[in-house]
Amino acid sequence: MIIDIHGHYTTAPPQLGAWRDLQIDYTRGQASAPDPATLHISDDDIRDTIEANQLRLMDDRGSDITVFSPRASFMAHHIGDLAVSQTWARICNDLCARVSELFPDRFLMGAMLPQSPGEDPTTAVAELTRAVEELGAVTVNLNPDPSGGLWTAPALTDRAWYPIYEKLVEYQIPAMIHVSTSCKPVFHTTGDHYLNADTTAFMQLLKGDLFRDFPDLKFVIPHGGGAVPYHWGRFRGLAMALGKPELEEHLLGNVFFDTCVYHQPGIDLLTTVVPAQNILFASEMIGAVRDIDPRTGHYFDDTKRYVDATSHLTDDERADVFEGNARRVYPRLDRALAARGL
Amino acid sequence: MIIDIHGHYTTAPPQLGAWRDLQIDYTRGQASAPDPATLHISDDDIRDTIEANQLRLMDDRGSDITVFSPRASFMAHHIGDLAVSQTWARICNDLCARVSELFPDRFLMGAMLPQSPGEDPTTAVAELTRAVEELGAVTVNLNPDPSGGLWTAPALTDRAWYPIYEKLVEYQIPAMIHVSTSCKPVFHTTGDHYLNADTTAFMQLLKGDLFRDFPDLKFVIPHGGGAVPYHWGRFRGLAMALGKPELEEHLLGNVFFDTCVYHQPGIDLLTTVVPAQNILFASEMIGAVRDIDPRTGHYFDDTKRYVDATSHLTDDERADVFEGNARRVYPRLDRALAARGL
Repeated sequence: MIIDIHGHYTTAPPQLGAWRDLQIDYTRGQASAPDPATLHISDDDIRDTIEANQLRLMDDRGSDITVFSPRASFMAHHIGDLAVSQTWARICNDLCARVSELFPDRFLMGAMLPQSPGEDPTTAVAELTRAVEELGAVTVNLNPDPSGGLWTAPALTDRAWYPIYEKLVEYQIPAMIHVSTSCKPVFHTTGDHYLNADTTAFMQLLKGDLFRDFPDLKFVIPHGGGAVPYHWGRFRGLAMALGKPELEEHLLGNVFFDTCVYHQPGIDLLTTVVPAQNILFASEMIGAVRDIDPRTGHYFDDTKRYVDATSHLTDDERADVFEGNARRVYPRLDRALAARGL
Repeated sequence: MIIDIHGHYTTAPPQLGAWRDLQIDYTRGQASAPDPATLHISDDDIRDTIEANQLRLMDDRGSDITVFSPRASFMAHHIGDLAVSQTWARICNDLCARVSELFPDRFLMGAMLPQSPGEDPTTAVAELTRAVEELGAVTVNLNPDPSGGLWTAPALTDRAWYPIYEKLVEYQIPAMIHVSTSCKPVFHTTGDHYLNADTTAFMQLLKGDLFRDFPDLKFVIPHGGGAVPYHWGRFRGLAMALGKPELEEHLLGNVFFDTCVYHQPGIDLLTTVVPAQNILFASEMIGAVRDIDPRTGHYFDDTKRYVDATSHLTDDERADVFEGNARRVYPRLDRALAARGL
């Protein structure tokens, strides 16, 4: 079985974006707050957008299951206040839950959190609880920078985040560390902002000792870990300079990387440097890069090809990257699949 | 000959830092502005700090020439106002000029610029001119974020930067794009802030068409290009999505990467993905990572070993990475070496 742990509902029916535009107008004082009850998306709308897009490509590429969460760039936690984010997160999470209800053997749900700049992370716990207990979420996306590029939140090792971590551990839910749209035009959201946030998250964890307090907490750093595997020697050296143990001991019991790296040499590097047990198959399809590479004739984001082709994984390791590691790091995913006979 | 295009005077005599502390006190309103004439550093002070450190390691490792600029993390353009940065840049540049005067066959000078947040980049042209014409600088370090992590400056493609670019082209001087200390505690200066800035700079250039206006302008992106080579497929795909040509055509006539990547797999990736003509040997020694890798028994930042060992370069390409490319991208370096019979 092939489990893709990183997909977003980037192809949601246009009603969703139209409703969000009304909400953005409200945050600008240009309209009253839209009523969530006015948003109508039918099951057929959902089926159509999934079957023509993600499901078609999953079948073409040979992946079985996708952990599917709201569109990352649309989380945009910097827009509006906490109440705006709470309403928006609830709508987006409900929609992803419907995808997994309609395609229970193909999509498991990940949730976004109603984060908001300057707000205590504790305010996100209620939606986290609802997403897990009522919607069946098997993971959440945690934004280390709800300000959208201003980086006003404390580091991930700060105690302010602990109420969320306590809940993640209680539920056996890993968090994917994933920023959203940058509100600063000097950054490109899916070009540098995402990768930079991945690198920053890893360095925040490296500097601290968070997993001493939370030995069972698990984080997935997406997009192949940003710059980290390419600069593994630098990070090992910085860990030494900071008096930390080797990265395997310091972080790799708790930190995992996905395979959203869109060329063969990148996957070859990732699988050379990072132990196979810390690599989780993912493509983020349909995401930032949607074209076919004219040099290979295949989609840039068809990462299964690169994982299949790399010589740095044994067959057992490859099976772990495709399935075993996901079942281990996401216990609720494993149980949900088992309940479906998968 | 082996030319290291990326070294900083990180081991400057302690008088320099003590003087800077007085200047920082001044910016905080705690003292009057210190007089640059009160800073006394003898030739022997300089010889001692160079011979015991950079020169010793250059000899140990077998590199001949270092392009040597003021300590990057000490540029700290966010401290104080323009006048503070002008005084500080002048002092630091004068000191690097003395290093290259004392060791003319081993060190060529790179300059820092007196940038300051919110100031028109034109204000840096006078010191650039002085550094090249009076001090013999063969390159400058250009900080894309003088605010130190707040990213308040316009993108590198903005016309505000053009007065600097015009001077760089006139002088045949490449610029290394290099940030300084982050003033935001969520970032680690040499961990994520440097690498993120490298990635952001590349993405800013990818989004724009700067080299249409400046076909002869040359930028060196340090630290192996941040996350860029590891995510080469992502950046190729983003270029396609933005309607840009392939990266070779779009950027690689003007953009170069150094080899400050501190492990073998990283250098193997860099030399697989980036054409050899766009790679310049560098170590940033003595810099962020100063320890010996216990797994290899060699310094993490002894990047010559990785370049020597990689199987992805022919002997001719390796010679270009070590010397030929530097002489081509830094014409004033080439001429300065030729004038010394090198």
